[in-house]
Amino acid sequence: MIPILKTDLSSELLDLENYIINHSCDIEHWFRTQWLEHTAPFYASVDLRNSGFKLTPVDTNLFPGGFNNLNPDFAPLTIQAISVAIEKICPDAWRVLIIPENHTRNKFYLKNIFELTEILKNSGLEVRIGSVDTSILEPTNIDIDENHFITIEPIDKREDFLFLKNKDGSEFIPCSIILNNDLSGGVPEKIKNLGQQIIPPINAGWPTRRKSSHFQYYSQVAKEFSLLTNSDPWLINPLSEKLDNLNFSSGEGEDRLVETIDRLLHQIQKKYNEYNISQDPYVVIKANAGTYGMGVMTVKSSSEAINLNRKMKKKMSVIKEGMSVSEVLVQEGIHTEEKINEAVAEPVVYMIDHFVIGGFYRVHTSKGKDENLNSPGMHFAPVAFETSCLMPDQGRPCHDKANRFYAYGVIARLSMLAAAKELSVKE
Amino acid sequence: MIPILKTDLSSELLDLENYIINHSCDIEHWFRTQWLEHTAPFYASVDLRNSGFKLTPVDTNLFPGGFNNLNPDFAPLTIQAISVAIEKICPDAWRVLIIPENHTRNKFYLKNIFELTEILKNSGLEVRIGSVDTSILEPTNIDIDENHFITIEPIDKREDFLFLKNKDGSEFIPCSIILNNDLSGGVPEKIKNLGQQIIPPINAGWPTRRKSSHFQYYSQVAKEFSLLTNSDPWLINPLSEKLDNLNFSSGEGEDRLVETIDRLLHQIQKKYNEYNISQDPYVVIKANAGTYGMGVMTVKSSSEAINLNRKMKKKMSVIKEGMSVSEVLVQEGIHTEEKINEAVAEPVVYMIDHFVIGGFYRVHTSKGKDENLNSPGMHFAPVAFETSCLMPDQGRPCHDKANRFYAYGVIARLSMLAAAKELSVKE
Repeated sequence: MIPILKTDLSSELLDLENYIINHSCDIEHWFRTQWLEHTAPFYASVDLRNSGFKLTPVDTNLFPGGFNNLNPDFAPLTIQAISVAIEKICPDAWRVLIIPENHTRNKFYLKNIFELTEILKNSGLEVRIGSVDTSILEPTNIDIDENHFITIEPIDKREDFLFLKNKDGSEFIPCSIILNNDLSGGVPEKIKNLGQQIIPPINAGWPTRRKSSHFQYYSQVAKEFSLLTNSDPWLINPLSEKLDNLNFSSGEGEDRLVETIDRLLHQIQKKYNEYNISQDPYVVIKANAGTYGMGVMTVKSSSEAINLNRKMKKKMSVIKEGMSVSEVLVQEGIHTEEKINEAVAEPVVYMIDHFVIGGFYRVHTSKGKDENLNSPGMHFAPVAFETSCLMPDQGRPCHDKANRFYAYGVIARLSMLAAAKELSVKE
Repeated sequence: MIPILKTDLSSELLDLENYIINHSCDIEHWFRTQWLEHTAPFYASVDLRNSGFKLTPVDTNLFPGGFNNLNPDFAPLTIQAISVAIEKICPDAWRVLIIPENHTRNKFYLKNIFELTEILKNSGLEVRIGSVDTSILEPTNIDIDENHFITIEPIDKREDFLFLKNKDGSEFIPCSIILNNDLSGGVPEKIKNLGQQIIPPINAGWPTRRKSSHFQYYSQVAKEFSLLTNSDPWLINPLSEKLDNLNFSSGEGEDRLVETIDRLLHQIQKKYNEYNISQDPYVVIKANAGTYGMGVMTVKSSSEAINLNRKMKKKMSVIKEGMSVSEVLVQEGIHTEEKINEAVAEPVVYMIDHFVIGGFYRVHTSKGKDENLNSPGMHFAPVAFETSCLMPDQGRPCHDKANRFYAYGVIARLSMLAAAKELSVKE
């Protein structure tokens, strides 16, 4: 099933989509030359939004947590992509350790870990799961459904390497460590200064990473891509600005927040006027380092952002694992105009290395089109992409599944390229 | 549909299949280290035979001609693999020229060229088809079915590069040339000494290549692999011997042929005794350089090989494009014990670079199990593999589709490794 785009594509976006579909050779060639210069992170998922006049990424997750939501038909594509990534990063790897998030009660997340484990096993790796959660004291089996379970084990460290203890007293010493933990709670002492390779590197975690930096790189990439497609970069790039030294509880920085929101809303309105868009502009205020949809607020005027009640203030000031927010990204809100059975649908594209391996729609029945879909508890129904994102069909229209997914794959890869530039600077 | 194996797997082959399925990590790791040292050819198809007591390659084609027979569900896998191969071999490539075989009347072959073109286009390349057939004087459209056609164009050459003429007088200058012509008729003057890259290189063609050399390398690879699996290399390796300076018409070398056949039959019988196999040994006599099943003969005794009638003598002495046979490979015949609806089924595995992308069964209703299935005219029904060859399932038995296909993929990759070694020596 592919969502219905409620509004028609504006002629500009249609032109862009048409360009993307009809110039896949130029685009693939451009990507090839980009990937020669920039190394893609190990994996990522990119949240996209399609407003009918704009198609942009809104979030790039470097520790993707929804492998279980992908179409199982494309598992071979993922396995092949992982094989290529492993060959590039650590061809000698034999045993790998996955370090998952600590919230072991979330069945959806555990299913993701199960799928990731299966994919890595099928790529020919011996895989075990070790937690940095200090409450895991012995190997713990957790059922993920009637027929499957995963075992999460405590991690041991000696000198500069991690290992797991086997039942017979011997040791499982991983060649590489695959992080599926975004380090929102800080970098655990245990994984600091390791001799083993950590994939992706620790600096991809939120203690170092900033959304503002990602979108700065994305903005550059979008500009370069727009030169190629001869289109307005705004069509694929959400405007955004960073603000720091904020304190939502004490009100520190409120004046700068108001200024920034007003400026952005004004810029968006100007663009809306240029393209005859009658919808109301809005902005999204996000923690600059963090995830899981906490600390995300949608506002249509600056007053909404400062007249917060106590509950909202608390929501904005705390993200995952109790970290407080003092830095935000104010970003142009992208109306979600894709709907499946009247429910808002947000595409999420998955990549391994620079390969698009699939995606799914986050379908949310109880939310409006300008609200954040990735909310706490993740009450959404995933609808896997039916076809791959690899096969544009130039004989068919833009809203053809294969073509829309191809366009999504292109925009997602632009985000991956931005992430590649972002991480290489930090290293 | 997966064929029924008419005889049960012998315990040795079952052990080997079980080993392959249950040690996929060791095997994939082994392959990863091999591919670090050896560069796989651009593409290949490997004909396998499964006799229930032996699973071996019988032919490795470096100019595969059956892309149209693969499961279309796995097209994305092929596109991704091609993208990786292109990135490795010629990341700057934009335009490629496919040089097909000259027999433009074979609809099956033309469908293959159409599919190959589509895959390359979907990998982001501009693709055109240029023939070395001197009878092609202008761009020629050939229908391959009701909705599709391909255009085969004459190739022009200036200095050391090939190009096609565009209608407007401009030129299509390919960055790379993809050969899908095994050069059985010799290397055309036009493609000699080119500045453009030819993929695979000309020395992969039959003027230079020898089956005996391939199987010598395969034999080495099989031995190394058998050390890993702790099994008898004979289980995956057909015995073979090369003979040269033969003339089937004049009878030159008949004595040596008799000797060789008798020796091989004796060796096979010894192995059959060792494994309590009651079937009759046989050998296959093939042109050492050539293809398309011409010049292939199956014999159960040396007398069969020398008491040929005129027609048979002619068949043995001439292969494709009128080349005569003076060098043969005498190879252990592998009984085909896989059957689909009572018809003999021979698996063919397809690879791009070192990635197994799928395969199909050549199902032949009118032939016996010890005859050559790849006969002139190709009167076979292709049955595409239903699942990929990438996902062994250790919880399920060997004859489970995923597991049998995985085992096929492993043996096919051993052949690809042999081909990699074979080509690197010639370069």
